[in-house]
Amino acid sequence: MNEIKIFCPATVSNVSCGFDVLGFCLEAIGDEMIIRKTTKKGIKITKIEGYDLSFEVNKNVAGVSALALYENANPDFGFEIEIYKKIKPGSGIGSSSASAAGSVYGMNVLLGSPYTPLELTTFAIKGEALASQSEHADNIAPALFGGFTLVKSLYPLEIIQIPTPDDLFAVVLHPQIEIKTANARKILPKEIPLKNAIKQWSNVGSLIHGLHTNDYGLISRSLIDVVAEPVRSQLIPGFESIKEAASKNNALGTGISGSGPSVFSLCKSQQTAINVKKAIKQAYAKHDVPFQIYASKINMDGVKELNKK
Amino acid sequence: MNEIKIFCPATVSNVSCGFDVLGFCLEAIGDEMIIRKTTKKGIKITKIEGYDLSFEVNKNVAGVSALALYENANPDFGFEIEIYKKIKPGSGIGSSSASAAGSVYGMNVLLGSPYTPLELTTFAIKGEALASQSEHADNIAPALFGGFTLVKSLYPLEIIQIPTPDDLFAVVLHPQIEIKTANARKILPKEIPLKNAIKQWSNVGSLIHGLHTNDYGLISRSLIDVVAEPVRSQLIPGFESIKEAASKNNALGTGISGSGPSVFSLCKSQQTAINVKKAIKQAYAKHDVPFQIYASKINMDGVKELNKK
Repeated sequence: MNEIKIFCPATVSNVSCGFDVLGFCLEAIGDEMIIRKTTKKGIKITKIEGYDLSFEVNKNVAGVSALALYENANPDFGFEIEIYKKIKPGSGIGSSSASAAGSVYGMNVLLGSPYTPLELTTFAIKGEALASQSEHADNIAPALFGGFTLVKSLYPLEIIQIPTPDDLFAVVLHPQIEIKTANARKILPKEIPLKNAIKQWSNVGSLIHGLHTNDYGLISRSLIDVVAEPVRSQLIPGFESIKEAASKNNALGTGISGSGPSVFSLCKSQQTAINVKKAIKQAYAKHDVPFQIYASKINMDGVKELNKK
Repeated sequence: MNEIKIFCPATVSNVSCGFDVLGFCLEAIGDEMIIRKTTKKGIKITKIEGYDLSFEVNKNVAGVSALALYENANPDFGFEIEIYKKIKPGSGIGSSSASAAGSVYGMNVLLGSPYTPLELTTFAIKGEALASQSEHADNIAPALFGGFTLVKSLYPLEIIQIPTPDDLFAVVLHPQIEIKTANARKILPKEIPLKNAIKQWSNVGSLIHGLHTNDYGLISRSLIDVVAEPVRSQLIPGFESIKEAASKNNALGTGISGSGPSVFSLCKSQQTAINVKKAIKQAYAKHDVPFQIYASKINMDGVKELNKK
């Protein structure tokens, strides 16, 4: 096997209460990549379509994560990478993580799968760090593991796969404005009131319990963010109107996806997700911001092969 | 049925990462109470053995919670309460919660059980507030529900019962010094670094997942407190030596029980708990502090009837 074509999914991190630790994987939106073995050693990016990204391996997220794996594996051949970017960089749905996860996933398959998903995560984090200026795994983990994930710790890296109820769907609205992760981090307070922290961890605990027990009511009551949302939502025009439209149409909860500007809703059932998508679309049309909107099943596989050659 | 004798269990709250929200119930230590119907209306405390507590209903934790229920139920008879106190007040293992939970549990049975455990919790919280100067449910909830509990929120009150692995045991060391809950609260910072809060909620999420999946390794790695322990452990002489002795004998984790001075360890298997108890006992004998120490199964029932008349 010399070539692999892969789907690199978008992901939602934070998930309201789980700032910096929770994430889930989307089915309906993602990049495509082709990874190909070459006789010449090293990593080369040969094609980028969709968005204007660097061809320099050291300045490209997929390139940096690829290099991290490559230096570890040290094979006597090389790889070339084609990137068909569909997730807009800076959208808040794990654009850089999709690229970082994609290159290492593809290379691993072509190497005969010597690495575990956890090991692939350590390589992909290096790529992600290029985009967000610090190491994070809350988008990488769901992109590589699928479903819901909890980053227990970064050093040492420990990822937990949380069970995902069958009937859980997401709606993601992407307003076409750019918020840099690094900037969205800067506006967060360095310290938070202990009483808010307590609320947040009781909600994280409740959400994990709700996911384990298929308790959609509890999931709904746990999707509260008293830490990042009050600050970051101000960067997203019309945030409250999105939340209101989703809530009126029985979304379980609505919050900022990653550092924004994308906004996610979780819904019980595909039909509710379709209704919520429609309602948000109508509500958001009143704001003078172009947008894209998706309804998606939770992706239980994460990054995956599209076909074999 | 005119009289009920009940066991009112000690409880461990906070459980390292779950400050103010998590708790579990003990089997090996608790008070006893007798609640008796009287033709005369009102609540009367007729006997208190073990510790010197107020007979004035309004100044006694069991009395205040009893009154809260009594005013709601408004029966045409009254109750008298006998308290056989075995849990030392200020010990950090839910002494006041045991009393507060006991009186309302017993009265409820004598009334024909009109109230749910959640409703009993709302009454018991009123009693608890007398002792700790603010309303809390993290000891009341495990005392009334049994096992591990998570206080999802106080207003509105929502309690979640978390599954408890069969082979989980606790060791509790109670140094005979007194730390007032209100004082232990005062020394806590009002604000905490966001990065510590993130660690805490990733550990809460991991602990809940570990309890659901019987993953003792994960439970162990989640029993970390970066918020209260660094401050409060300074009030407990020999805290580090307890932790070290427990850890060397394969305890899953060790932390402050409630606001201290008691210290708990969780262990996989009764034999490990016995070993840990022995090791802590030896280590703590070097400190010039009298103490009591218990090994206990996790109590899955909570407060319970001892016999019927």
